[in-house]
Amino acid sequence: MSGVQIDQLIQLLAKLPGLGPRSARRAVLHLIDRKESLLRPLAEAMNQAADLVQTCNDCGNLDVLQPCAICRDERREPGVICVVESVADLWALERAGVFRGRYHVLGGTLSAMDGIGPEDLNVGSLVVRAGEGQVEEVILATNATVDGQTTAHYLAEKLVDCGVEISGLAHGVPVGGELDYLDDGTLATALGARRPV
Amino acid sequence: MSGVQIDQLIQLLAKLPGLGPRSARRAVLHLIDRKESLLRPLAEAMNQAADLVQTCNDCGNLDVLQPCAICRDERREPGVICVVESVADLWALERAGVFRGRYHVLGGTLSAMDGIGPEDLNVGSLVVRAGEGQVEEVILATNATVDGQTTAHYLAEKLVDCGVEISGLAHGVPVGGELDYLDDGTLATALGARRPV
Repeated sequence: MSGVQIDQLIQLLAKLPGLGPRSARRAVLHLIDRKESLLRPLAEAMNQAADLVQTCNDCGNLDVLQPCAICRDERREPGVICVVESVADLWALERAGVFRGRYHVLGGTLSAMDGIGPEDLNVGSLVVRAGEGQVEEVILATNATVDGQTTAHYLAEKLVDCGVEISGLAHGVPVGGELDYLDDGTLATALGARRPV
Repeated sequence: MSGVQIDQLIQLLAKLPGLGPRSARRAVLHLIDRKESLLRPLAEAMNQAADLVQTCNDCGNLDVLQPCAICRDERREPGVICVVESVADLWALERAGVFRGRYHVLGGTLSAMDGIGPEDLNVGSLVVRAGEGQVEEVILATNATVDGQTTAHYLAEKLVDCGVEISGLAHGVPVGGELDYLDDGTLATALGARRPV
């Protein structure tokens, strides 16, 4: 209907999570309306990211530096490693600004259903890091899902001989959360783990 | 947190309609995971679109050809022009495959609120085209919104001296639509314009 180039751009954009064919069409019209202010800068930023961004060999974070800015930041505690499933989770913790140690990105969770075993995740490198003496604590910050918790249990067993403290995130009522909207599992956990005020 | 390049890509992607900061972050991780299969092809498709896609001087459609493929397609009736607000509307009609004439893209609607007058739209070129003798009918296919219908009325007056038939899309119950879910305006219109069966 309007040139192979436009159709191809629509098809590629529609592959992004959160965009379907309809929103991809809208996005393409939006982009072509803003060729110099958005379309070209976006293409350039994509090429730059493709050229420069790499996975940190130490922790699995994404950065243009190798090792990544977090791993090379000497102000961060080298004694604490926070294990997360994905870079998205690492970004979430960094946005919160509440953790001053270093990370280890697993790259997923164990999943019998999807056929993902320990050899598909960055488990070996975690055990090596945890055993290097400098590390005192490993925080298992996988998601509070079945797969995430299964993975945390597996890792806790793997790390038991490394001589490090192993901890996990607390479960309970989210800050600002209303009881009325919470699921039964969270309520049961929060009640079971109640603390003196 | 992770390199200026990644942050910049997130910020640019978040400017697309339908994407916010959160979905832009997801999209960037998705793209970096698929550098060769998606990120680079997308950057290339964007550069191609920026280089090649242009607005048709005759009708306002977007295409890599000048005039566009629809305007130069001799199998399409030159006697009927369908006036639409935007290229998105043109695409919608083309997907439906129900119109075999040519188009005229206004580039918006008249809007007192947004300060958009006739001089901001492709009205002059429409009047010229309609007066060229070859054209027998102009279909005003602006949206069934207040601004769209105001624009249609304005165009109908402008075109009255061109000696062409002027028509508009029928209003009523959408095909497959359930009465229970329709607004009062549509129901009133559909009832008022009822037809013998």
